[in-house]
Amino acid sequence: MPKPLHITFLFYEGMTALDAIGPYEVLSRLPEVIVQRVALNKGQVRTCSGLTLIAEHALTEISQTDVVLVPGAGNATALRECPETLTWIKTIHEHTLWTTSVCTGSLILGAAGILSGVKATTHWAVMHRLANWGAIPTPNRFVTDGKIITAAGVSAGIDMALYLAAKLTNEHVAQSLQLGLEYDPEPPFDSGSPDKAPQILVQALRERLKNRFEPE
Amino acid sequence: MPKPLHITFLFYEGMTALDAIGPYEVLSRLPEVIVQRVALNKGQVRTCSGLTLIAEHALTEISQTDVVLVPGAGNATALRECPETLTWIKTIHEHTLWTTSVCTGSLILGAAGILSGVKATTHWAVMHRLANWGAIPTPNRFVTDGKIITAAGVSAGIDMALYLAAKLTNEHVAQSLQLGLEYDPEPPFDSGSPDKAPQILVQALRERLKNRFEPE
Repeated sequence: MPKPLHITFLFYEGMTALDAIGPYEVLSRLPEVIVQRVALNKGQVRTCSGLTLIAEHALTEISQTDVVLVPGAGNATALRECPETLTWIKTIHEHTLWTTSVCTGSLILGAAGILSGVKATTHWAVMHRLANWGAIPTPNRFVTDGKIITAAGVSAGIDMALYLAAKLTNEHVAQSLQLGLEYDPEPPFDSGSPDKAPQILVQALRERLKNRFEPE
Repeated sequence: MPKPLHITFLFYEGMTALDAIGPYEVLSRLPEVIVQRVALNKGQVRTCSGLTLIAEHALTEISQTDVVLVPGAGNATALRECPETLTWIKTIHEHTLWTTSVCTGSLILGAAGILSGVKATTHWAVMHRLANWGAIPTPNRFVTDGKIITAAGVSAGIDMALYLAAKLTNEHVAQSLQLGLEYDPEPPFDSGSPDKAPQILVQALRERLKNRFEPE
């Protein structure tokens, strides 16, 4: 394992903040890591919920990394990443140890051309769209296929990051990070997946997201 | 309930990003809300893990809000909020519907003088410090006492925010938000609280955090 380990978070306009910040809070606490925040242009990046983050690096400044994480977005417009970003993902992926995504970030990995024949997951409401890029839709909290790890919707990035933290170090380090973040979830409702939530809510949300993500 | 509802996130140097962004991703998606990000000075705020967020408002610009959320920080230095911030919290609290904190954010509420005789929680490793401010340490995922809701360490803010979302609207809205964020946690380890994690990790982390938070 190279030391220090370089971990790069891709930011882009319209991304979902928690997709990146959940894993960020886990992975940035690993020992001997250099964490980088990169976007097409360095500077302010506005997320889908109005929060603004700063990317310290432009894509052209980062040509190699050990781990890359691509967050998802709240609609297809934000996902229509420019050719420069897709080319950057495809190129940097060649030499990563791990290429990862959260939520609809896997659709960007797909658009970048690196999911062909790869088992992958995404947000439950757009799972079928993975096949557009030749990926094998695999509903799960997160899915590992070779060096590619894709996580399900938004909050799944935290679970994926703990798994990745253990892979990059060892289980004790990952467990200690979990303890530090007091990640012992007790959701007040049991409505976090389409097989558990009231079906009327599932249908309404599926319809709403369908409108946001189709047609492209 | 006033419409639109104003929800204000306090940012400050050294804060823990996920303490704020977890609840932010829930509460900013509520219907008919205006979400505001405020710091002592408007502009860039560097979090404890190096990520930089933007606060669009200075404290002097926000004199009233329906909901305020105070995140925690990774060490006591960051928590030593300046008198202006503590006065702002104390003043704005007078007319909130809900005053909330995540992780060691409750120690800031305490320092602002609003937790005297109040049942409250915080990160497990610094629970005893709540008594410094006259609060009644109450270990729980989140604790409601009157209009004050305090959440446990970092990730507990997501659970608290879903509870608060239901209070501000109704359970169906909160359940739909949970479904949208696919918040159906499956941590790969069961190490998120001191009674579940390996005791050697609990002791090591307790010692490390003790050094960061004491003496003041």
